[in-house]
Amino acid sequence: MQVAVVGLGSMGRAMAARLLDMGFSVRAWNRSPGRAEGLPVTPCRSAAEAARGAEVVLSSLASDEAVREVVSAPDGILAGLEPSAVHVGTSTISHELGASLARSHTERQRRYLSAPVLGRPDAAAAGRLFVFAGGDESARQQCRPVFEAIGQRTFDFPDAARANLAKIVGNLMLGGILELLGEAIVLGEKGGIEPARTVELLTETAFGCPVIEGYGKRIAAGEFEPPGFRMALGLKDVELALSAGDRLRTPLPAANVVRDHLLAALAGGLEGLDWAALTKVMRYEAGLR
Amino acid sequence: MQVAVVGLGSMGRAMAARLLDMGFSVRAWNRSPGRAEGLPVTPCRSAAEAARGAEVVLSSLASDEAVREVVSAPDGILAGLEPSAVHVGTSTISHELGASLARSHTERQRRYLSAPVLGRPDAAAAGRLFVFAGGDESARQQCRPVFEAIGQRTFDFPDAARANLAKIVGNLMLGGILELLGEAIVLGEKGGIEPARTVELLTETAFGCPVIEGYGKRIAAGEFEPPGFRMALGLKDVELALSAGDRLRTPLPAANVVRDHLLAALAGGLEGLDWAALTKVMRYEAGLR
Amino acid sequence: MQVAVVGLGSMGRAMAARLLDMGFSVRAWNRSPGRAEGLPVTPCRSAAEAARGAEVVLSSLASDEAVREVVSAPDGILAGLEPSAVHVGTSTISHELGASLARSHTERQRRYLSAPVLGRPDAAAAGRLFVFAGGDESARQQCRPVFEAIGQRTFDFPDAARANLAKIVGNLMLGGILELLGEAIVLGEKGGIEPARTVELLTETAFGCPVIEGYGKRIAAGEFEPPGFRMALGLKDVELALSAGDRLRTPLPAANVVRDHLLAALAGGLEGLDWAALTKVMRYEAGLR
Amino acid sequence: MQVAVVGLGSMGRAMAARLLDMGFSVRAWNRSPGRAEGLPVTPCRSAAEAARGAEVVLSSLASDEAVREVVSAPDGILAGLEPSAVHVGTSTISHELGASLARSHTERQRRYLSAPVLGRPDAAAAGRLFVFAGGDESARQQCRPVFEAIGQRTFDFPDAARANLAKIVGNLMLGGILELLGEAIVLGEKGGIEPARTVELLTETAFGCPVIEGYGKRIAAGEFEPPGFRMALGLKDVELALSAGDRLRTPLPAANVVRDHLLAALAGGLEGLDWAALTKVMRYEAGLR
Repeated sequence: MQVAVVGLGSMGRAMAARLLDMGFSVRAWNRSPGRAEGLPVTPCRSAAEAARGAEVVLSSLASDEAVREVVSAPDGILAGLEPSAVHVGTSTISHELGASLARSHTERQRRYLSAPVLGRPDAAAAGRLFVFAGGDESARQQCRPVFEAIGQRTFDFPDAARANLAKIVGNLMLGGILELLGEAIVLGEKGGIEPARTVELLTETAFGCPVIEGYGKRIAAGEFEPPGFRMALGLKDVELALSAGDRLRTPLPAANVVRDHLLAALAGGLEGLDWAALTKVMRYEAGLR
Repeated sequence: MQVAVVGLGSMGRAMAARLLDMGFSVRAWNRSPGRAEGLPVTPCRSAAEAARGAEVVLSSLASDEAVREVVSAPDGILAGLEPSAVHVGTSTISHELGASLARSHTERQRRYLSAPVLGRPDAAAAGRLFVFAGGDESARQQCRPVFEAIGQRTFDFPDAARANLAKIVGNLMLGGILELLGEAIVLGEKGGIEPARTVELLTETAFGCPVIEGYGKRIAAGEFEPPGFRMALGLKDVELALSAGDRLRTPLPAANVVRDHLLAALAGGLEGLDWAALTKVMRYEAGLR
Repeated sequence: MQVAVVGLGSMGRAMAARLLDMGFSVRAWNRSPGRAEGLPVTPCRSAAEAARGAEVVLSSLASDEAVREVVSAPDGILAGLEPSAVHVGTSTISHELGASLARSHTERQRRYLSAPVLGRPDAAAAGRLFVFAGGDESARQQCRPVFEAIGQRTFDFPDAARANLAKIVGNLMLGGILELLGEAIVLGEKGGIEPARTVELLTETAFGCPVIEGYGKRIAAGEFEPPGFRMALGLKDVELALSAGDRLRTPLPAANVVRDHLLAALAGGLEGLDWAALTKVMRYEAGLR
Repeated sequence: MQVAVVGLGSMGRAMAARLLDMGFSVRAWNRSPGRAEGLPVTPCRSAAEAARGAEVVLSSLASDEAVREVVSAPDGILAGLEPSAVHVGTSTISHELGASLARSHTERQRRYLSAPVLGRPDAAAAGRLFVFAGGDESARQQCRPVFEAIGQRTFDFPDAARANLAKIVGNLMLGGILELLGEAIVLGEKGGIEPARTVELLTETAFGCPVIEGYGKRIAAGEFEPPGFRMALGLKDVELALSAGDRLRTPLPAANVVRDHLLAALAGGLEGLDWAALTKVMRYEAGLR
């Protein structure tokens, strides 16, 4: 099966590598050149060229703006996408843009799935992502081999907007847990309980899950470099949740708290750290320097 | 071993029953009579009488006020506690009162442990509680058989205040997770994702832990009766966290959010429901009736 | 002096009427026709046509999107704006768009001022607005007669972005005061103090200013119709503040609280009311129905 | 008229001095001696002794705890208060304690008014306080000459609890305005508007009231020493509001924000400053050092 990968950031590269491992033939394009080096892909000069001839086009881009441009530019995805193919957007984009891309593809008689993924590049490389796939049943069927190559499980949704929202909901939960871990750890520390002990108490009683264990240890140890997920991307994700809350008229007060701590972290020069470092702001606010 | 149980609420009764099962001899007192019925305990007319002759006195009471009175009254625990015995406070009390009880026992040459427990009465009856035991090493050693009878694991702390704080930290985390689940579920629902589906997405990816699974299902199903833990007790626990935050000069903004939702739930007549019903307030705020 | 007014909503019409009263000659355009009726203005078929020949072009439009389009469309303001003229944007727009409009005018060798106004249409009609004028000194000088006609006082800023930000800061303060009034009034009411009494206590001691007096009485009386300023516009303004906070890396936690109450009001069907009706949500949350 | 002043902190001293100026005969007591120096009062060895023979006993004490003790101690106010006299509590105490003092006086056939005052010691010395007087009509009548001496205006309430709540509501508003001023000033500053300019824009348009003007200038200038009202007292006042909110089941989310900033200020070593210095925390969070 011929697959195009548009966008070779760390996640796009990892997905391409996994697809190659699993026997797919991969065409690839990235805005800045050189990102395909070392991968046996067919390099292309534009997103349109990558899309031509591919049965599935996976896009992996950083922001709503990047997605809009790479889809609609004269040499963008829509310009090359075959009528029989499916464009699969794997980026975490806004609830609004998911719905809008579905419409714009339909108007051009093309097919689109939103399929944001949960997991880091190493999970992609190992085929261990979670995929939230939203769109027509037939398009989802066509892409199933691709999802099975990159992911350990696919959750299906009847349209693009809901798949994007599902990913946003997961991010909201994730950001909120960073905040809770920070409050728990800092309160404990000010009362004489070591951070690692607080994390142990939580995870070995009622709160033992991958996110709480993984981030709990990271926060307790103060290990925020190299970043697994950068502060500014964390802010983007929380903003997507708040923005969905605006459109859907849903107050999200805990998300506000996370946003404010991320803003303070960025204002304070922590932009190079993992977003779990928002707890550094909380430590400061509690007088721990 | 002779153990006294002071306070036969649902948790006190369950601990007494478990101790009897495990072969302990149990003396018991409760403010309002009749609570010992059906249990082969030695009923006593005062907390002091229950304490006399016991090697370990477990108190299980509803609030800081109740603890203060039952400890210090003329016929209270301190009036009967033997010099060789240990008073073990299992209630969730304030960080401040834990420290204060330790001092008042020491002044009277008596020994005190704070040992708040995590788990519901059915966990107590099955010996599956988590025990946060804080105080002198020797006192903790003396109580070990009791902790092993009622609990699956004991976490040790060098003093009473830290054990109380550890429990408070756990409650803070718990309340915060109810808030996050509510935000995630309501946002999803307004965008067309069924509550049970949102909970599935979370627990089967990165958030699968007993608290998130148990409460997630309860919230998705809207099952808040009979209450496992009443709204007003939930508020008390969040207030304990905020009050510890005040004393320790630690802002806890996510805890504020939980407190406000619990207050609105109580103002709105939901006092008979489980505290997870704070999500009903969140549904209302999002326009879901 | 020849002035064009682009956008004849209630504020645009009131400014046009005031300018006519003060002897200006006014050309006008509005997207939907008929809005100029009853005003002795020169009606125009496009924003470009309105702009042609005018020394000052005042735009009064509802949102960032409307401004962007009316400025840049083929028959928009920039297409007709004379090199010697000044385009004065009086709308409350984002901090970001203010800066962007300044740049896009400069690139076309045209001149732009951001001059958002504080006050309602009746203040405009009476020449009692406050004007926050930002841009080049010479452009501000050229527009001074217009500002003096519509406003009681002009505050000058060296660039457009700062004038927009000043207006946003005022709106942030305004929204925050609605929240504080609501909290004060509801807390008082639940303790047996009549709302009007609470407002009296505040305004006749240390808090007597036009905003607190005016909104305080409105909230105490529960008079939210007809709306002086609609709920959805209030939300837009608070969002502008939060969005400026994002760009400038400034947490605004009180603004979050206002936003959430406005969202709940809109979710609850209060979109036809004045934005001060966010206090109805607060009453609900406190159990007052 | 014979008046006793119990508690000679800066406010108690200023009220005593004013009463002397206005021709009252004043008896006085303070826990630590020497505070009456320089005032022609009759110094007393206990609160009971001060109360004996006085027609009005004004108490001015720092906290709920101090009030409880000085009222009920064996040589406290109730031990000396004449049946024909009125005890007037001028301290800012909890809503709960106001009601409780009214009951305890009635049980002893004594009369109590809660009359917390708004204004600083210099306002007391000039007879410019605002008095919130709550209790029986006859008791309020008897104290009228005293209120007219120290205050510019008296607001009457039918019971003690409501007078305390009215003061608490005023404090809630005050704290909230500090927060709003901080957000407005910091957001402006990060966008290039000088703090003093922001304050000018606000106070000379729609927000010109004594609190906003006074605190606005103080914050813009960064003048927090000497403190007019200390950080820890500010926290006490906001806590009284939150505690009233708990009892009355009223969420106060803006008050939470203020509380958290005050906690962070105290955690950060700013306890010697005026409570308006909570804006220093906000500056830090926005990256301004």
